[in-house]
Amino acid sequence: MQISLLTNPVSLSDEFLEELRTVVEKRLSTADAVCFQHGKDESWHASVPPDAVVFAHSTDEVSEIVKICARHKIPVIPYGTGTSLEGHVGALHGGVCIDLTEMNEILTVNAEDLDVTVQPGVRRKQLNEHLRDTGLFFPIDPGADASLGGMTATRASGTNAVRYGTMRENVLSMVVVMADGRIIRTSSRSKKSSAGYDLTRLFVGSEGTLGVITEITLRLYGIPEAVSAAVCPFPDLESAVNTVITTIQCGIPVARIELMDEVQMKALNAYSKFDYPEQPTLMFEFHGTEAGVKEQAEMVGDIADDNHAGEFQWATKVEERTKLWQGRHDSYYAAMALRPGSKGMATDVCVPISRLAECILETRKDIDEQELLSPIVGHVGDGNFHCCFVMDPDDPDEMARVEGVNTRMVMRAIEMGGTCTGEHGVGIGKIDYLVAEHGEALSVMRSMKIALDPDNIMNPGKIIKL
Amino acid sequence: MQISLLTNPVSLSDEFLEELRTVVEKRLSTADAVCFQHGKDESWHASVPPDAVVFAHSTDEVSEIVKICARHKIPVIPYGTGTSLEGHVGALHGGVCIDLTEMNEILTVNAEDLDVTVQPGVRRKQLNEHLRDTGLFFPIDPGADASLGGMTATRASGTNAVRYGTMRENVLSMVVVMADGRIIRTSSRSKKSSAGYDLTRLFVGSEGTLGVITEITLRLYGIPEAVSAAVCPFPDLESAVNTVITTIQCGIPVARIELMDEVQMKALNAYSKFDYPEQPTLMFEFHGTEAGVKEQAEMVGDIADDNHAGEFQWATKVEERTKLWQGRHDSYYAAMALRPGSKGMATDVCVPISRLAECILETRKDIDEQELLSPIVGHVGDGNFHCCFVMDPDDPDEMARVEGVNTRMVMRAIEMGGTCTGEHGVGIGKIDYLVAEHGEALSVMRSMKIALDPDNIMNPGKIIKL
Repeated sequence: MQISLLTNPVSLSDEFLEELRTVVEKRLSTADAVCFQHGKDESWHASVPPDAVVFAHSTDEVSEIVKICARHKIPVIPYGTGTSLEGHVGALHGGVCIDLTEMNEILTVNAEDLDVTVQPGVRRKQLNEHLRDTGLFFPIDPGADASLGGMTATRASGTNAVRYGTMRENVLSMVVVMADGRIIRTSSRSKKSSAGYDLTRLFVGSEGTLGVITEITLRLYGIPEAVSAAVCPFPDLESAVNTVITTIQCGIPVARIELMDEVQMKALNAYSKFDYPEQPTLMFEFHGTEAGVKEQAEMVGDIADDNHAGEFQWATKVEERTKLWQGRHDSYYAAMALRPGSKGMATDVCVPISRLAECILETRKDIDEQELLSPIVGHVGDGNFHCCFVMDPDDPDEMARVEGVNTRMVMRAIEMGGTCTGEHGVGIGKIDYLVAEHGEALSVMRSMKIALDPDNIMNPGKIIKL
Repeated sequence: MQISLLTNPVSLSDEFLEELRTVVEKRLSTADAVCFQHGKDESWHASVPPDAVVFAHSTDEVSEIVKICARHKIPVIPYGTGTSLEGHVGALHGGVCIDLTEMNEILTVNAEDLDVTVQPGVRRKQLNEHLRDTGLFFPIDPGADASLGGMTATRASGTNAVRYGTMRENVLSMVVVMADGRIIRTSSRSKKSSAGYDLTRLFVGSEGTLGVITEITLRLYGIPEAVSAAVCPFPDLESAVNTVITTIQCGIPVARIELMDEVQMKALNAYSKFDYPEQPTLMFEFHGTEAGVKEQAEMVGDIADDNHAGEFQWATKVEERTKLWQGRHDSYYAAMALRPGSKGMATDVCVPISRLAECILETRKDIDEQELLSPIVGHVGDGNFHCCFVMDPDDPDEMARVEGVNTRMVMRAIEMGGTCTGEHGVGIGKIDYLVAEHGEALSVMRSMKIALDPDNIMNPGKIIKL
């Protein structure tokens, strides 16, 4: 089969732009500032601006836009809130960015079925605000107030995944515009089905490389009767991680179990005005009935005690919990504040939990040996953790050391039966590691990409190199 | 792209069989009885025998067998225990059946990571026997003592899915032999990953049409501290279903919540020597700590009371529970016993739970109006239910009425936002309904099939018609 290897096209023709304007009218921009902003996510990767940005308002519009781009073999890059972390939105081969943030309607809440259908530009906080009176909530929380389209496209997860799963488990169905403009629904919204290939899971995590997600049906959960959170310091990383491992192995349904190492706790205290011991620390959240939460907390307390934990500090009031988790979510900014003027690079690996302590300890040792500044935080209940390098991208020596630690961390995780990216996705930042992780399976992914996007116009250069 | 449309090949050449024997030696049969048995599953669909059956012993052998078949463009049909229900194993275009039942080793139990890696011929009861001393178990229970390869290939689920999910949620990774004999691993065994397309979910439910699954890594769970089961009659179907709906909406983590209608209860009493009221009945199972199980049971009891339930009969002892669930699992045989000499046809739809009562009641009405004998049972916590037609396949008038009720049931489910098959898969029995269910999305599935199996040798004629 013929594969079009795209190169940077020269700027888009006036005729082409005129054709797009027949669909989006004035909602098209070629202004440098707009294009620059849309070529960049929150990561340290430099902006690679598209040639034009269009602001879509409906599935039909997206379909028309993609059809025009397909006819001219012009790349299409979907864009949500730009909060990705691996350079997902860079227009490596130029083309048209489809900004979906104005498709931000919550279409249907099926409270009885515990599901909701949204447009891709709806943000997770907006959704939970909207749901408040129903007694339901959407649990997936990657930290950033990301769009649900972007979270679906990157298979995001975050702090609640240990109990509620990731976007993989929580997307029931989608409407997708394919590379030729066809509109499909990936599945019904029934809870189970064995009716053919799992297109829903195919598009979750496909990062815009197979189609544009224009509607998403998500699972919802009842807001738990009782919620309680606690912070607990440990004498060392190993004791903290062993507490996590035992908790998971005992099947205790913790809603969150987060690790912050001593470097991160120092940053957190300074940035968020906390007063926690600057030791490796676990943050827990328990969801359930009053009795269930109490029981979970007691069981975890016993496990922590066995691992020489310090004192639990409880946060049962909503405001205390909000402050606590906001602090956790601000860990990136807190880390940056440790070294004014620096940039951050968040790494992301996930390993089987039996190897977690070993993987974190070896990584910590490597960071220290390389004399780098990098707190470690993790959704450790899932075996997932991040280093956040606080670095000067203009110092080539420092950057080489950062690169070295990151590569060794990734290869260590893969060697331990883990993955090069637990939740941030591939983008351009992880693309070279997929060979080591997937081997021959990568060629199967490549065949699928070619089958569904034969001209390689959908976010080209991400996940699969053609 | 050229698609080979297979027709029934003439019998396999001696040279071809000789080539296969270089791989499997004496583990090849062309005997009529062996081929007949391998062309048939547990359903009413007639046997369509393959031309030869080979008994594979390793992934490498499967790869060699598939390479030979690919070279000669001979169909390959994987076979487990033959307990599928939609004619999945019929050799519609002849070819070679790969019997995987002798690949029945449990390869690695990672108790710390709550996972296990098995060969595809391992059966679920064998796995749980093996795990007994570890305190762990594998919850998915479709009734039949099926092979885990077959359960993966059909995206099976069953009575425990309401709490533990289906095979979709419980397969972590697989080794698959592709249509050209390449061997791939679909993913690492880490709990989360966002490293590219979700090949694991692609192969779960692919029914042998994309490759042969030769190794499976599955999630395990701790055996709950306390388990309790209960049986409760209701005055009518609606009250029973409303109890289910409220239970799910309240987020009560029931492990099983099964419906049997009055016809099934009559069959059950007669077949399994029970003495239950012959009314619509729910069977519950609760898993958790002692206190948690008690709390769940009380909450469900209150909901049932509000819906005019009769008396709960509790089964807390293992033997009582085993008898109870064996009775539930035997519902098919119990139904057959209502009319000696009859055949059974199990239907399978799944709808959003808000439509469940309506869907079941309309179906019951249709069955009665058509004067057919068909109990209804269901994994109603997931919105999934089955009619089991007890019929005479030699009576064309009766069969036409059965066909009519089944088709209306499927179309009703699809129209309600549901699926034509909740857990039995597509096979040949549901293939014609996929157009109504998936519309344009079916062409995306077709593109994937063509990309991964361009000569259409993998279980041809199932899921996707080429």
